[in-house]
Amino acid sequence: MPEFAVPPIDPMSITFQPPTGGMTPSGPVLSRRMSDLEGLFADTAAWRAARDEADPVVYEVASSPVPEAPGELPQSITTIHPGAVGGEFHMTKGHQHPNPQGEIYLGLSGTGGLLLFDGTTPKWIPMAPGVIGYIPPGWAHRSVNTGDEPYRFLAVYPGDAGHDYGWVLEHGMGWRVLRGAGEPRFAPFQAEPVAG
Amino acid sequence: MPEFAVPPIDPMSITFQPPTGGMTPSGPVLSRRMSDLEGLFADTAAWRAARDEADPVVYEVASSPVPEAPGELPQSITTIHPGAVGGEFHMTKGHQHPNPQGEIYLGLSGTGGLLLFDGTTPKWIPMAPGVIGYIPPGWAHRSVNTGDEPYRFLAVYPGDAGHDYGWVLEHGMGWRVLRGAGEPRFAPFQAEPVAG
Repeated sequence: MPEFAVPPIDPMSITFQPPTGGMTPSGPVLSRRMSDLEGLFADTAAWRAARDEADPVVYEVASSPVPEAPGELPQSITTIHPGAVGGEFHMTKGHQHPNPQGEIYLGLSGTGGLLLFDGTTPKWIPMAPGVIGYIPPGWAHRSVNTGDEPYRFLAVYPGDAGHDYGWVLEHGMGWRVLRGAGEPRFAPFQAEPVAG
Repeated sequence: MPEFAVPPIDPMSITFQPPTGGMTPSGPVLSRRMSDLEGLFADTAAWRAARDEADPVVYEVASSPVPEAPGELPQSITTIHPGAVGGEFHMTKGHQHPNPQGEIYLGLSGTGGLLLFDGTTPKWIPMAPGVIGYIPPGWAHRSVNTGDEPYRFLAVYPGDAGHDYGWVLEHGMGWRVLRGAGEPRFAPFQAEPVAG
């Protein structure tokens, strides 16, 4: 499996293929199945049923070789497959940067959104191809596929920002993003979503 | 004229239009005419003639409001108009980051290249739409339009990287990039280019 390069690294050209979601040359690639996402969706019974039936891949993250190291600016492409669990859209785990640093997401294909939470106020940025979602330092962030096709975006983030997944488990993300009539519907994080 | 936002800033959605090269919402926009680029091209007589005849805009840089401040990750879109001066392709001034930090360029339209120099070795990354050029910390960088249309790219860079234009004046960029037969031609930085 490809790994991150070890600094100092040379200048490099990186290409990405929206049809596949890969980066060339490739760094690490990770895949999150339903079974990897215990506790993520509010409807535990619906999550368990989805896990036991087909255990589908919910999202994949393909990185370039640019390493997560101080001074570097790594990139990755995330593909969230369409679907919902108990009416709650497929999403990433979400994380906070332990070292507060900004990050950008650039929509490549499909339709989704960027949910941000600073511990007090949730914000929602609708994402589509050509839209940059800006994540200021201090805002936890999660991506959600709100469409019927794979939602794919390019992330660019400082190599020393880090990933704190525990922050989201402790504080939540303010909202849950649910299937609505046409538009996504937002529910307070603690509430059980209505199955859709 | 739009300015950078003042931190702390809220999450925001930013769109960009390849046909115009602008960002919405907009931060600062700068325009470099031939008269702003004294000393950039090797053929001083050709530069002076171009300046005196029409003083064309050689390149423009449109920034989003995300500020050049520690912890932020600003973005800009650069458009280099096609052309050459004494056979040397239109290019940006080029700079080094005084605070060594990586940067990415993403090709949006047209054809160009990213010239990098670490003080010893020049490198050339051909750029086209969908190509990421990775600039590791410590590499000075300049962009060049090698085609017949505007060459446009998105830059994403850490807000505290800074811009040192003097480094390039002192050390050069290793190569000059000249019109060749089909492909660009590279000449040692000190040499006079052959008019093309």
